[in-house]
Amino acid sequence: MRIARVRGTVVSTYKEPSLQGVKLLVVQFVDQTGEITPEYEVAADMVGAGLDEWVLVSRGSQTRHVRDCTDRPVDAAIIAIIDTVTLSNQPLYSKRDQN
Amino acid sequence: MRIARVRGTVVSTYKEPSLQGVKLLVVQFVDQTGEITPEYEVAADMVGAGLDEWVLVSRGSQTRHVRDCTDRPVDAAIIAIIDTVTLSNQPLYSKRDQN
Amino acid sequence: MRIARVRGTVVSTYKEPSLQGVKLLVVQFVDQTGEITPEYEVAADMVGAGLDEWVLVSRGSQTRHVRDCTDRPVDAAIIAIIDTVTLSNQPLYSKRDQN
Amino acid sequence: MRIARVRGTVVSTYKEPSLQGVKLLVVQFVDQTGEITPEYEVAADMVGAGLDEWVLVSRGSQTRHVRDCTDRPVDAAIIAIIDTVTLSNQPLYSKRDQN
Amino acid sequence: MRIARVRGTVVSTYKEPSLQGVKLLVVQFVDQTGEITPEYEVAADMVGAGLDEWVLVSRGSQTRHVRDCTDRPVDAAIIAIIDTVTLSNQPLYSKRDQN
Repeated sequence: MRIARVRGTVVSTYKEPSLQGVKLLVVQFVDQTGEITPEYEVAADMVGAGLDEWVLVSRGSQTRHVRDCTDRPVDAAIIAIIDTVTLSNQPLYSKRDQN
Repeated sequence: MRIARVRGTVVSTYKEPSLQGVKLLVVQFVDQTGEITPEYEVAADMVGAGLDEWVLVSRGSQTRHVRDCTDRPVDAAIIAIIDTVTLSNQPLYSKRDQN
Repeated sequence: MRIARVRGTVVSTYKEPSLQGVKLLVVQFVDQTGEITPEYEVAADMVGAGLDEWVLVSRGSQTRHVRDCTDRPVDAAIIAIIDTVTLSNQPLYSKRDQN
Repeated sequence: MRIARVRGTVVSTYKEPSLQGVKLLVVQFVDQTGEITPEYEVAADMVGAGLDEWVLVSRGSQTRHVRDCTDRPVDAAIIAIIDTVTLSNQPLYSKRDQN
Repeated sequence: MRIARVRGTVVSTYKEPSLQGVKLLVVQFVDQTGEITPEYEVAADMVGAGLDEWVLVSRGSQTRHVRDCTDRPVDAAIIAIIDTVTLSNQPLYSKRDQN
């Protein structure tokens, strides 16, 4: 999985029928120093993530195990809202500090 | 999924039998600032996308869940025509503005 | 899928039993301007592609839907011989012009 | 699989139900000279790896064969703790030397 | 598939139970000029490849079709020992010349 930050939304009315009801968020990946990179994905949000939150993104066909994604052509999904990231015993991110 | 722009078509008469009837479009990926990148895919179009439209592309084996792609060796599919992309509460793209 | 050009062959006598009878071609990917890139794959050829022809290559587990690839550990396959590629209403490639 | 070094942890309370009980570790990939690269993954730890240990990481849908990952949307898993890596008959890494 | 050269071995005693008996080799990918690149994989060896031999590596979930890999969390496997690689009718590699 990759660590990413929620940046925005994609709206579409004309789409694959199986995408009905799926919220699509633009997430940008975070590098190992905590900085946002230009690399992004449009991911199905199954956990109710909010703008600027740090999230965990799973990609590829394992997303079929995400609740409600089983039969959808979704190749990326937000599977968790991150509380903390710790590297070498040092905090890199804490959700509490953002509030 | 990735955001891409429809750029053209690929035509083939001699192909895998299961590809019969599949429209193949060349799409170039769009970066996080809305610019087209050199990175492209040839994607099966299941939503009737037109030239220069912004679309959502799903890749890998999850494309098997796209209507009519189930038993086809297709590793990329256009699954939605994009209406709007919003980043940090600012509009990046609006289909209406293109008309 | 990606657009590629057939560059050569790989021959192996000692291999996975399920690879018997599979023709293995070296293909180099073509960029969005029609130029060959250094990026290559060794792909199973199921359509009888010839040297220097432009072909369509599918990668990943969707290749299991290629005729005769179902139970083979093949992660890339040539699924079509390309007749034409058109970008922004301009021809990028036409097989007829090569003959 | 890729060789990686365990760098830290990710904690999340609000997540996909199927992720309950999965320990999530941040691993950074090691290059062919033994140096850590900026490339990382958040991987499910099924072998009890410790900080700074060298581990083997498997990615993609094959992780469904990892014990206890079968029905989880996990696209990367630590599948082994590495004892030794030998390149061209020279030792690159030995776990014993780290203790 | 990708062309690679066998460079070394990875040994692990503490690992996923399903990895028992799988020989793990470090392979470095070869570019289109025949040179070794820094890009590597740790691949399951199912064909008995030796040090410095050129091999064919398959990645992703298609490795489940490799004999004895079916239920293992292996995302890369050596599926053939290469005899010859020919590019544009010129030999790039011949196993016989190495002996």
